[in-house]
Amino acid sequence: MDRQRWVALAREVSAGLAGDAVERERKNAEPVVEVAALKDAGLLPLLVPVEHGGHGADWATAHAVLAEIAAADASVGHLLGYHYLHVWRTTLFDRPDLTEALNRGTAEHRWFWGGVANPRDDALVLSDVDGGYLVNGRKFFATGASVADRLVVSGAASTGKLTFVLDAAAPGIRYLGDWDNLGQRLSASGGVEFTDVFVAESDVLGNQPQPGDRRAQRDSLAAIGFQLVLSRVLAAVGRGALDAATLYTRETARAWPTSGVERATDDPHVLAGYGTLLARLEAADLLVDAAADAFTEAATRGDDLTAEQRGRTSIRISQAKVVTSELAVEITNRLFEFTGARATGAGHGMDRFWRNARTLTLHDPAVYKAAEVGRHLLTGEFPAPSGYS
Amino acid sequence: MDRQRWVALAREVSAGLAGDAVERERKNAEPVVEVAALKDAGLLPLLVPVEHGGHGADWATAHAVLAEIAAADASVGHLLGYHYLHVWRTTLFDRPDLTEALNRGTAEHRWFWGGVANPRDDALVLSDVDGGYLVNGRKFFATGASVADRLVVSGAASTGKLTFVLDAAAPGIRYLGDWDNLGQRLSASGGVEFTDVFVAESDVLGNQPQPGDRRAQRDSLAAIGFQLVLSRVLAAVGRGALDAATLYTRETARAWPTSGVERATDDPHVLAGYGTLLARLEAADLLVDAAADAFTEAATRGDDLTAEQRGRTSIRISQAKVVTSELAVEITNRLFEFTGARATGAGHGMDRFWRNARTLTLHDPAVYKAAEVGRHLLTGEFPAPSGYS
Amino acid sequence: MDRQRWVALAREVSAGLAGDAVERERKNAEPVVEVAALKDAGLLPLLVPVEHGGHGADWATAHAVLAEIAAADASVGHLLGYHYLHVWRTTLFDRPDLTEALNRGTAEHRWFWGGVANPRDDALVLSDVDGGYLVNGRKFFATGASVADRLVVSGAASTGKLTFVLDAAAPGIRYLGDWDNLGQRLSASGGVEFTDVFVAESDVLGNQPQPGDRRAQRDSLAAIGFQLVLSRVLAAVGRGALDAATLYTRETARAWPTSGVERATDDPHVLAGYGTLLARLEAADLLVDAAADAFTEAATRGDDLTAEQRGRTSIRISQAKVVTSELAVEITNRLFEFTGARATGAGHGMDRFWRNARTLTLHDPAVYKAAEVGRHLLTGEFPAPSGYS
Amino acid sequence: MDRQRWVALAREVSAGLAGDAVERERKNAEPVVEVAALKDAGLLPLLVPVEHGGHGADWATAHAVLAEIAAADASVGHLLGYHYLHVWRTTLFDRPDLTEALNRGTAEHRWFWGGVANPRDDALVLSDVDGGYLVNGRKFFATGASVADRLVVSGAASTGKLTFVLDAAAPGIRYLGDWDNLGQRLSASGGVEFTDVFVAESDVLGNQPQPGDRRAQRDSLAAIGFQLVLSRVLAAVGRGALDAATLYTRETARAWPTSGVERATDDPHVLAGYGTLLARLEAADLLVDAAADAFTEAATRGDDLTAEQRGRTSIRISQAKVVTSELAVEITNRLFEFTGARATGAGHGMDRFWRNARTLTLHDPAVYKAAEVGRHLLTGEFPAPSGYS
Repeated sequence: MDRQRWVALAREVSAGLAGDAVERERKNAEPVVEVAALKDAGLLPLLVPVEHGGHGADWATAHAVLAEIAAADASVGHLLGYHYLHVWRTTLFDRPDLTEALNRGTAEHRWFWGGVANPRDDALVLSDVDGGYLVNGRKFFATGASVADRLVVSGAASTGKLTFVLDAAAPGIRYLGDWDNLGQRLSASGGVEFTDVFVAESDVLGNQPQPGDRRAQRDSLAAIGFQLVLSRVLAAVGRGALDAATLYTRETARAWPTSGVERATDDPHVLAGYGTLLARLEAADLLVDAAADAFTEAATRGDDLTAEQRGRTSIRISQAKVVTSELAVEITNRLFEFTGARATGAGHGMDRFWRNARTLTLHDPAVYKAAEVGRHLLTGEFPAPSGYS
Repeated sequence: MDRQRWVALAREVSAGLAGDAVERERKNAEPVVEVAALKDAGLLPLLVPVEHGGHGADWATAHAVLAEIAAADASVGHLLGYHYLHVWRTTLFDRPDLTEALNRGTAEHRWFWGGVANPRDDALVLSDVDGGYLVNGRKFFATGASVADRLVVSGAASTGKLTFVLDAAAPGIRYLGDWDNLGQRLSASGGVEFTDVFVAESDVLGNQPQPGDRRAQRDSLAAIGFQLVLSRVLAAVGRGALDAATLYTRETARAWPTSGVERATDDPHVLAGYGTLLARLEAADLLVDAAADAFTEAATRGDDLTAEQRGRTSIRISQAKVVTSELAVEITNRLFEFTGARATGAGHGMDRFWRNARTLTLHDPAVYKAAEVGRHLLTGEFPAPSGYS
Repeated sequence: MDRQRWVALAREVSAGLAGDAVERERKNAEPVVEVAALKDAGLLPLLVPVEHGGHGADWATAHAVLAEIAAADASVGHLLGYHYLHVWRTTLFDRPDLTEALNRGTAEHRWFWGGVANPRDDALVLSDVDGGYLVNGRKFFATGASVADRLVVSGAASTGKLTFVLDAAAPGIRYLGDWDNLGQRLSASGGVEFTDVFVAESDVLGNQPQPGDRRAQRDSLAAIGFQLVLSRVLAAVGRGALDAATLYTRETARAWPTSGVERATDDPHVLAGYGTLLARLEAADLLVDAAADAFTEAATRGDDLTAEQRGRTSIRISQAKVVTSELAVEITNRLFEFTGARATGAGHGMDRFWRNARTLTLHDPAVYKAAEVGRHLLTGEFPAPSGYS
Repeated sequence: MDRQRWVALAREVSAGLAGDAVERERKNAEPVVEVAALKDAGLLPLLVPVEHGGHGADWATAHAVLAEIAAADASVGHLLGYHYLHVWRTTLFDRPDLTEALNRGTAEHRWFWGGVANPRDDALVLSDVDGGYLVNGRKFFATGASVADRLVVSGAASTGKLTFVLDAAAPGIRYLGDWDNLGQRLSASGGVEFTDVFVAESDVLGNQPQPGDRRAQRDSLAAIGFQLVLSRVLAAVGRGALDAATLYTRETARAWPTSGVERATDDPHVLAGYGTLLARLEAADLLVDAAADAFTEAATRGDDLTAEQRGRTSIRISQAKVVTSELAVEITNRLFEFTGARATGAGHGMDRFWRNARTLTLHDPAVYKAAEVGRHLLTGEFPAPSGYS
């Protein structure tokens, strides 16, 4: 199935999501129905290679799908984007057998993946036991984990930081359900507590390589993969907001008495305002596409990935993050100027785009992404790989 | 009692309001408790002349009080500002006897006033009956009416537009309680329906003068009085937002790992960001003060008010509206950049400032206020008096 | 020769141009040396088909070349971009014989082309004489004409608007040399006066088709071709400005005493400022590329070009114009914040980027381009083809 | 003579300055004529007490005068503002006798004052000689010195930093005449070289007090006085730019074809653009006024000035600097959007406002003033007194 058909399919899913986005958000339930919709549409094994039973699509296709889903519901786009990353990042380790098994499970059982690895919390702690480890500790945010089938988790073992996979329903895992934030309300981003959760040695993907290790550059792609997905979701929030606002202006808004025009769609400030924001959004989307291409190219290099190419990829993604962050906030904030007072009626839910944009843009501050880009421009230095770079 | 003491008193009230602003907003009850707090503090007869039993304060004092109250709770500031306008605007007519009676009632019974006069709806209709009129019709928005003791209402009689006062509990008035908007949630701005509501001839303040009439300039001050109060409330929303955000940054925010500083209060972008916004806000507050002074001066002129002075006053107020509108939105939107991700926790209610600012700024579009200012600069023309100018 | 080699060649030319850009601009001579440099580098017949003796490059290559040249000297980029358009737009008429002859001349004699067709002036007037026409009248702006070898000219004949070619040294043409504007000072944009200039019938490219004519859509591409070139030059102005500013910051700027850092390249506001602007510029460049692709595709359709495709192309180009206009002004205005006070020394010529950006962005107002984009978003309407759309 | 009459007088001077501002700037001569105009108008002894032969006006009057002069010619406003500071700052020392003598000279001989004290250069060096000192060294910028009658100079003596007065024509002083910057071209801001310049002991105003000294707070007002004058000049640059642009729009600009209006003064974007900028400028002017009031109050406290009041004054002035800096740049940059392409004709000189604003705003970075304001908001700390704070 080619990209256009996946996009068409994603549009069907997103039409469904957009239809009741306001109601679903208000209910504030765990996004079980939403994840089921992704499963039913067959979107989850999109990136799984054909030889492992998946659809074998490329990242560009995944981004095109994400753009559609996240425009309709940014939380669901966020969940799906992270899922794609978790499925893919098993390949960053040297466990092709485990990757294959997980891929096959994802394809066969339509597993939805979540992760437990927020870099700003204290680490989970792994203690050695027979045949594996016991995991203990608590993470404050773990997007998608509570509605996942499988988890990718990182923790501190005596030998260093290890990453492993887990059945999300494994004994000892408790989902705190404490995500109650302004935006991304359906992103299942609450905390997780681990009490003596057993991980088999065979489920360990690998350790975090030391700088200079063969696998170091490859391993470090995960962090910027998340940055890239966030950029895509932010651009899509802008798109979704413009879609909803233009629909309102077209069908409901009234011209202002002193505007000298009959219809809101003829108001000069409305026209220029929408046009400016759309023009910027088109540019931003192209930049995210370019960043996704750079990421794909870097990801195919495996151990041959150089620090230079990794660095350039990281800068490209930071550029995308900077542009989409400021634009998502601007579009979602300003759209009200083009809809008029009645669009603030709570029933329209026109604030959800801004709440999503504001929440997403605070994941990590865009100003420090901009600084990375500026430093590279000025000095040629690349940012040191980290949980956010 | 001088201005400083009224401000001190207002600060006590506003400390109480700020303390549970998030909870009160979430409950979404009619602002009965809030109006009671204003009554208990003695703030309602602030502008009523001493000889009528009031406190005899001037508009500058009223603005200083409004600034405090609206910073803590923009809905309550909105209600109080409109109340002051309603009390004052009885003087725009030629019914000193009625004004005195109403003033005395306001002082003695601590009446809270609301209005029913949204210019964008169809008018209420008055039909002649013995000794007065019967009022019928519906208005979509009537800030404060549902929690008021007395109403100022306008409607279309056979002889033109009439303005009259009513007991808010008069038979035939139904408050629709349908205000459910993103912001100003406690402003009691729902609709009102009138079914054969009787108005005595003696409660009619007067008609709307024709252009050129002796009373025309004076009468036209009411509309810009509302614009001025909105400007004050908008500036106060910015102040309240900065207060809440700085408290959070100071006490709760963490420095970003790559910022190179230990505390969020040392982050260069946080420092410069707050400083820039505060500097603009100080300028905006001074502009609202200047507009309030111009308004007061115009109001004291009575029938001697010239079109020129009325025009200059209107431009001054439009300037204040333009500056406070853009700034209130900017501060409330950007504050999150200085608090970090956890401040999006719903419990902090840090989005309420933005929701209030966005809702208030759409009352009427700032861009058309800016156009009035620009036209005057270019051509010397003043805006034609209207419901918004 | 492939695109990379043309870009490399363009870089050589642009290195030369950048080296003395400040001095050349100050002399304010006609850009004779500059055009000669373009000739010597072989850049003029870039788009001329191989079968007519040219290099047969595509528009994407031409844009890549323009980006390099205009970053170094926006006037020269402007001249070269318009030259490419003039060479290409002979194909919009039904005179393949004349196009071929002109192409061959351009390839053989390295002709530089200028145009005389500013849409806001009164038209030149053509009167019928034996074997052709006499042209009379005056145009206020005619970029490149005074340093051109050949001209494309439009004027009003009795049968409608005709477009024809002329030897730029034809008797009766007088170049007024009156271009003395803030920016684009070397763009040879002065006026031209025609006094009984003879045009042979055989040099007439054709008339302006009526709406609905077979050739109407194709013909209307010329105007948006100019918009596209302006967008490219504007993006390049931003690039050139960033290049010059970063060089200065890196080599000359001093850290501000209270910044807490030793070098200007470590100043947090400098880093974030540059990074933000570069990120936006990368997005803008991609949008211009996409617009150039759309334009190329439309141009290859010939008479089959539909109003729909023409409209979409026009909107894409307008998007590029909107984004590059605002960004070129922003970058060139703000760069001083990252260089410090001494960079205002006149000898550095750091203001030339802003002067170029401001002058170019006023060619036609970006806000009305934005309105076209906004109207299409809201209503699906495309702008009516005109001299600017 | 009251404030209104001084303002009226200043308006006459500024009308003269505005009339040939473009030509004078182009000639780039030393501002001898300009200083003579200030002398002839009697503006130089404005702040000199009546008992010393001056006009005895207050700082608020001086600011009102500066606003007029600087709107017409920012260089001249800059010169006059610094002159007022130099005259006044002799009172910061304990030499009432010298102050009186200088005041009398200023009143009688219409002395124009300049200063030599740029904080970012190496200091001038004073070596002890019989009856005084010999001064040697070089300063890169010394606004006004080359056209001054008297100078206030600071240098490093063996006992610390000393401030003294000099005849500007004293032997050994060489004015380098090397100010050639984008803006403030007539501000006579070139360097000065001192070769064995003799200063009599009796012309020494005093030393720089140590922190904690009785005179420390009072002494530290000089630096923020300069910041205040710069704020006033920046606001005036905005005013002058708006004046020139509105004149152009009113009398010369043409409506854009697709604007749907006949006259540029009816264009909705022109109207809203001007209105927004003017509204912000009015707010900024009020903030500078408030800062001037705070400064005046602090200045009257003498040795009783507390660190707290000095700090609050400094923050107020920093707020004014932040707001006027960003606004001056914005107005002068954007005005072209409201005038159209032909206003870029060099003869109109419409870029001089931007060049002045850009040059002035780089004197010291506004972002670090904003940081001072932000830090005070967050922590209550005041900036440490320095050459810029």
